[in-house]
Amino acid sequence: MQNCPASPPSRRDLLALIGAVAGSAAMFHAMTALGFASGSGYKGPVRLDGDPKGASVLILGAGLAGMTAALELRRAGYKVQVLEFNGRPGGRNWTLRGGDRFTELGGATQTCEFEQGLYINPGPWRIPYHHHAVLDYCKRLGVALEPFIQLNHNALLHASQSFGGRPQRIREIKTDFQGQVSELLAKATQQGRLDEAVSKQDKEMLLQTLKSWGALDRDYAYRANLVSAEFRGFAKDPGGGLDAAPLPGEPVALSDILKSRMWRYLQNFALHEFQTTMFQPVGGMDMIGRAFAREVGDLIRYDSRVMRIKQDDHGVTVTYADAKNPADPLQTTADWCVCTIPLSILSQLPLDVGAELKAAIDAVPYVSSVKIGLQFKRRFWEEDEAIYGGISYTDLPIRQIAYPNTGFNRSGRGVLLGAYLFEGANAYEFTALAPAERVARAVEFGAAIHPQYGAEFENGVSVAWHRVPFTLGCAGSWTDKARQEHYDNLCRIDGRIVLAGEHASYLPAWQEGAILSSLDAITRLHERVVKT
Amino acid sequence: MQNCPASPPSRRDLLALIGAVAGSAAMFHAMTALGFASGSGYKGPVRLDGDPKGASVLILGAGLAGMTAALELRRAGYKVQVLEFNGRPGGRNWTLRGGDRFTELGGATQTCEFEQGLYINPGPWRIPYHHHAVLDYCKRLGVALEPFIQLNHNALLHASQSFGGRPQRIREIKTDFQGQVSELLAKATQQGRLDEAVSKQDKEMLLQTLKSWGALDRDYAYRANLVSAEFRGFAKDPGGGLDAAPLPGEPVALSDILKSRMWRYLQNFALHEFQTTMFQPVGGMDMIGRAFAREVGDLIRYDSRVMRIKQDDHGVTVTYADAKNPADPLQTTADWCVCTIPLSILSQLPLDVGAELKAAIDAVPYVSSVKIGLQFKRRFWEEDEAIYGGISYTDLPIRQIAYPNTGFNRSGRGVLLGAYLFEGANAYEFTALAPAERVARAVEFGAAIHPQYGAEFENGVSVAWHRVPFTLGCAGSWTDKARQEHYDNLCRIDGRIVLAGEHASYLPAWQEGAILSSLDAITRLHERVVKT
Repeated sequence: MQNCPASPPSRRDLLALIGAVAGSAAMFHAMTALGFASGSGYKGPVRLDGDPKGASVLILGAGLAGMTAALELRRAGYKVQVLEFNGRPGGRNWTLRGGDRFTELGGATQTCEFEQGLYINPGPWRIPYHHHAVLDYCKRLGVALEPFIQLNHNALLHASQSFGGRPQRIREIKTDFQGQVSELLAKATQQGRLDEAVSKQDKEMLLQTLKSWGALDRDYAYRANLVSAEFRGFAKDPGGGLDAAPLPGEPVALSDILKSRMWRYLQNFALHEFQTTMFQPVGGMDMIGRAFAREVGDLIRYDSRVMRIKQDDHGVTVTYADAKNPADPLQTTADWCVCTIPLSILSQLPLDVGAELKAAIDAVPYVSSVKIGLQFKRRFWEEDEAIYGGISYTDLPIRQIAYPNTGFNRSGRGVLLGAYLFEGANAYEFTALAPAERVARAVEFGAAIHPQYGAEFENGVSVAWHRVPFTLGCAGSWTDKARQEHYDNLCRIDGRIVLAGEHASYLPAWQEGAILSSLDAITRLHERVVKT
Repeated sequence: MQNCPASPPSRRDLLALIGAVAGSAAMFHAMTALGFASGSGYKGPVRLDGDPKGASVLILGAGLAGMTAALELRRAGYKVQVLEFNGRPGGRNWTLRGGDRFTELGGATQTCEFEQGLYINPGPWRIPYHHHAVLDYCKRLGVALEPFIQLNHNALLHASQSFGGRPQRIREIKTDFQGQVSELLAKATQQGRLDEAVSKQDKEMLLQTLKSWGALDRDYAYRANLVSAEFRGFAKDPGGGLDAAPLPGEPVALSDILKSRMWRYLQNFALHEFQTTMFQPVGGMDMIGRAFAREVGDLIRYDSRVMRIKQDDHGVTVTYADAKNPADPLQTTADWCVCTIPLSILSQLPLDVGAELKAAIDAVPYVSSVKIGLQFKRRFWEEDEAIYGGISYTDLPIRQIAYPNTGFNRSGRGVLLGAYLFEGANAYEFTALAPAERVARAVEFGAAIHPQYGAEFENGVSVAWHRVPFTLGCAGSWTDKARQEHYDNLCRIDGRIVLAGEHASYLPAWQEGAILSSLDAITRLHERVVKT
């Protein structure tokens, strides 16, 4: 469904056959030959044909994986119930708004004080265009989307030891690097130094291309002139009326760009997972969780902490505690179980599964991540600096400042993401701090990039994912070795239990991974049920 | 106001002084030295201090230039009246929706048949983030904005004579070009062929950078592997559950990219005027014109075609015809006149101005441009091809196919821009066709890129700007030579008349040029009025 229209469906069958007969390397060569641009694991709404004969399924967790399973299994004729730890649906699909309260591990409770209409998404916050399953559920469930700006050319790169600590515009670093690299290559080409690698025929065309792509002048040089200014921006913008001629600025020297290491950030704009067009739900990421819950909310028992999972030849029995009455554990049973509990939690529960699955569950550490939302009196990043959405990057511990991608150009208060730490020592350091201290440090560091912080800051909220009771971490962190040893074992059905979630996917930390994993798990479960 | 917060306003004064004393070259060096990133001609709401002593101004044209002048001059205390050719405000700021009728030169009348809620903007359709004046008026007048996607990595490049005519994904051409160029440069660097140009110290860092930026593997090669796939996209996307490992696709050879000339389109994504974050008004570009008209609509006389402009020492007299009663011309007078009539029209009117201004008015030809909107039964570009917004480029006469940047991921009908010709022979060819024929050809050509056109097309509408009675062309087309000879003369006040509009700016065809030109014109006019 997502492929080129010129490709009839039968090509897929052909490819599957090639894959089965000759292996994946042969398959991808065949795919290329057949003109396949991209192959998603999502083939449109899942089809679970055949009679489940009254079978029941207990789903653990009402995140996107759990609610996908609930939605599709009920539709296929199963008796479904869902146990959810939190008092809300969505799991990591979560949005914090003014008035929201939450307590982290260690006991600290925060109340978000944002003005009405402002929010942050502490978990997932963007949806790539190629996450076809998420997009299809958004469509089917009526979740409105708007663009998420990943690359804003006018946002900033900041290296504390370079350029006197002054932030640089992304457009300048990006253009100046590309321009000077093009000049180097053009010169080498002209001097015949690439004659072994580039045919005589291609040489002239390569020069033309580098000139166009690198904003070079007629001498194949990248310089301070109106040619480069049309790409990097002007020192004085073209205007209207008299005295309106534009003036170019001075490029940043290649050597300074290299030394600053700012080039590291450029790949954040080129990676397939961050390419345009990205999306966010209008109003907050939890619009997706809420939309699922409108469909399957009647199946979910909230505030239910799973304590033990047992299975035998006849079914699955789960012991759980109600948050309001934890002293009196409850039990429920079903024929089958789809368990979406994060491995960080699941590895600590008594669980009747085979040694291979148990080893897999224990093999995956969880990524540390911290997000901090800050409210300011005004959207100074737009008003003073013409930064509308997107992300600034820094080598300071806050790593990123992400500007809101909604409510552009409005007066009044604004909330930005004042820190987004993902992996690394800084994430652990910030996790170790008390919530108020995290916010204070984000404001302190951020002021090096935006001096307005001092005068404009109002309040903040922080989520350190290793202190979040329902995940104890942000997402499964697979190494190649762990994947080779354990991944298939993690995904295989073990008796009457199958696991699902982003941890059971090749898309860790992405909602698409959670949904695709769930669809694959229930498809295999259903096949087993129908066959028995 | 739009500059780095670290720059106190006094720098501007200093720069103006340097500019005045030592010229613009010295000024731009000083600007760079002082850390100025960008200097807009827009300094925030215009200040017209001083008493106009009851002076009256007649404004010709209720486009953005004219309405800006009306808004600000009335606020400054002038008696203002506006004559407008059309029966609506906005001029080229125009949106076509279902039910709209318009007649072009030659007499052909089209009625737009789009479904309610769907539209095209035949004139301006995007607002760069550095068009500070447009953005500020949007803010002051309450016009909501949403992102305009210029670069969609998953949109298409199409060269009829390359790749068997099969469209290529932008992300693949862009990544494969950048990767192979990086590989060439990395190899040359390793072989010591750049030793004159790159210091020993920078060499190692340059290699690291090229590896990161070019998606090179550990051997500094750009190949079919998961390194390149993370940037160009996968042959098989990473998925969830079993059999979910990703597979890379085969890069397009550099030589084939060069031959296809698809690289020409890459600069459309890098140019400052097209960089992220761009905007469009929610609901159509004419939301801006309508917002202005809410403020100054009471000053505008619609359906008024200017026939003659006279001036003497005492004032300006304009003869005009009412569209409903053209046989009985009317007259109106004022102390001063701001004339925003396009030069293509103005050059044909009897006009009392000096030889220099007259020569300037006659010196500027108008760009030819054609836009064609097409309605389809469904948003197949999203549903079949995962193209959400952005633009596909082709060497066919339609040049561009631009997908709607609103209503993403919805079911139901959609309208795309099926052709956007700007300059060149194709624009004239399409202008010469009858409206229905233009639409038919856009559908025929477009089907080479999107075969779904055949089954899904419903109706279309086309605007050929050289046939639009109120502009007779799209925008002023300045050469460097014409600008040198005539631009200042065009902008200078001639007696009691001053010109404004995009044609009197260094931002031809942009709304920002119209507004900045108008602000500059009324500022100078006001200075003159206050001094007399």
